[in-house]
This record gives sequence, structure tokens and C-alpha cells, in this order.
Amino acid sequence: MAELTESVATLIDQLSRLPGIGRKSAERLAYHLLRVQKQEALALSDAIRNVRENVRYCRVCFNLAEGELCTICLDPKRDQQLLCVVEQPRDLMSLEAAGVFRGLYHVLLGRIAPLDGLGPDQLTLDALVERVRTGSFREVIMATNPTVEGDGTALHISNLLAELPVDITRLARGITTGSILEFTNKEILADAISGRQKF
Amino acid sequence: MAELTESVATLIDQLSRLPGIGRKSAERLAYHLLRVQKQEALALSDAIRNVRENVRYCRVCFNLAEGELCTICLDPKRDQQLLCVVEQPRDLMSLEAAGVFRGLYHVLLGRIAPLDGLGPDQLTLDALVERVRTGSFREVIMATNPTVEGDGTALHISNLLAELPVDITRLARGITTGSILEFTNKEILADAISGRQKF
Repeated sequence: MAELTESVATLIDQLSRLPGIGRKSAERLAYHLLRVQKQEALALSDAIRNVRENVRYCRVCFNLAEGELCTICLDPKRDQQLLCVVEQPRDLMSLEAAGVFRGLYHVLLGRIAPLDGLGPDQLTLDALVERVRTGSFREVIMATNPTVEGDGTALHISNLLAELPVDITRLARGITTGSILEFTNKEILADAISGRQKF
Repeated sequence: MAELTESVATLIDQLSRLPGIGRKSAERLAYHLLRVQKQEALALSDAIRNVRENVRYCRVCFNLAEGELCTICLDPKRDQQLLCVVEQPRDLMSLEAAGVFRGLYHVLLGRIAPLDGLGPDQLTLDALVERVRTGSFREVIMATNPTVEGDGTALHISNLLAELPVDITRLARGITTGSILEFTNKEILADAISGRQKF
């Protein structure tokens, strides 16, 4: 649009590349950034730059880290015999936010998704197998997403680890606390029945 | 959260200050920016910085501009006798996108909103009056938003300009093309009746 200055047009363009941000939202965000204190807009600009200059993947578990190792791998109080395998750093963060797991993690940085062109080679599987082979883990918990691709990835990994002396488990499936049975779908009910537990 | 690196926490914090972006969305955007090509993340960072370093308000009409004057004030083909008064640059852009107005603009950079502590002094009213007084406008079109505050602002301006030899008009109000009468509210129908036009 001729009436947009080039800088504004570029900013709207860049903002609308973000997931979930359409053209209209990008315009609204751009005007917000034009209107706020210059310092606040530059703080966002710097935060984006800093995250890309400072953050890398942990050498051991592929979680996000500012140094060689992430804070979890550096923490001696974590249970060194329990390993939880997740797809992405944000999955790790959800588990940490829940505060229900005190072991170590391994982040795959993806999932096997042939339709998206993502094969096992793009995941951190070699590092995982090596870690389990040389480490002292008693249990590896599969915490990939409960989707066709997440389940497939977990199955692939369980095959890779089958020969090693370690228990392989996966997250429980069933009805979710707070949900309503009437509106719960068939797959969830089937999981809930087949995984039923003693009172 | 201990498991977040400082750079990531800062970025999520900055993103969640944006309007309409909650904590969860900010996290999602932060992970997106970590995952994309470094170049793409830095392009957004630079676009934010550039917009704040390069963009200012047009000296004449207060539209966004990269130099002293905006592209509209610089365009000799615009009708120099028609002036359209809008609240914000984005209102100007909506009108330009519609392509239905070929005159000049004056951007108030706000509206009179006593409840939000916004008085006439914070708007570009002195410049507007001076512009109309010394210019050769035959008509000033009020295109403030059709809200209590927008209408109040337009009324205030029409009083300021009352002594000057210029027609003051406002945007037509009525039913919107494509709407359904049954679901149209009382105020809109009242506008449509009182502003009815000959076939």
C-alpha cells in the first residue's frame, strides 16, 4: 500500500509471519509498537535478538540452554536414573511447570512425521540411545504427544532401546480430571477402560 | 521458572506485553522464534528497531512518515481542497485501502476521552485549526470513530472551526451493506431513517 511507510510495511510483513498472527493482528501490533515508549519497543527487539544469540541446545539433553548444559542437567538433585523423552522443549516446560517429575529429560526436537518429511534422522535419537547405553537409567518414560505421530515416534524409540536393560514406560491415558463423561470421545473412553486401576 | 533460560524468559515477558497476546501465546511465539531460521528471527528484531528509528509523524498531517512529510502530503495529485480528519494513522489506512477518498488527511493522534484522561490538549488540534485557517480547504470531513468519544471529538472540532469559511461534514451513518435489518440495532436504524436519501 502506497500510504504505508516502508519500515511500517516491513514490520507488518514480519509480524504476520508469526503463527496465529494474521494481517489485521500484525497491523494492530505494528501500531502498538509505534505508539508505546521507544524503550519498550526496543526491549522487544533486543529480546528477540538476545534469544537467538545466547540460547542453544543443551549438549546432553537438547533442552534450551544458555551455556553448554541446561539447568536441569546441571542440577545434582534430579533423579539421575529416570529419563523422560519429550518432543520439544515446551513439552519439558509443561512437565516442569506441573512439578510432578524430578528426573532428567531427553528432547527429541521433533517427531517422526513422514507426511511432513520428518524422519528419524532429524531427531536426537543417536544421542538418546548412546545416553541410555552408557548411563545408569532404570526407566525411560515416553512423553511424546498422544497423537498418531507421537505414538509412532515412541514406538520407534522403544524398539531402538529394546535390547538395553531399562524399563520403558509411557504416560497414562484415560479420562481427564474435570471432564464430563458424556462429552468424552470413544478413543478416550477406550483408553480409560483398558487402563483401569484398582480403587 | 527455573527451567527457562533467562533470555527465553525475557522474550516471553516482552511478547506478553503486546495487546491480545497472553502468556500462552507469548510462549508459543517465543518457541517459534527459537525454531525458525536465525535470519528470520533477526529480521523481525530489525523491523521493530527500524520502525522506531525511522518512522515519525508527518510535520503537516501527523500521518506516519519516514521523512518530514508523508507520502500523501507529498502527492500533488491529491485534492488539496478536501480535508479528512481521523483519529489514528490506521483509520487513514483503512480509508486509503478502500480507495474512496482522494483528498488530504489530518490525524488527531487520539480522541477526547475524559475518562481515560485524554483532553483536547493531547490532540493535534492547534495544527488542524492553523491548517484550515491558512489553507484553501472547501470542506473538512469528520471521520472520527462512530463512538461517544469519537462523536464528542468531532463536535469539539466543528466548534473550533465554526468561524472559518469551510463546510464541515461527517461520514454517513446508516445500515451497513450486507447486514440484516432484523439483527440491526435501534441506534443504527434511527441513523438510517433520519439520514434517508432519495432513490
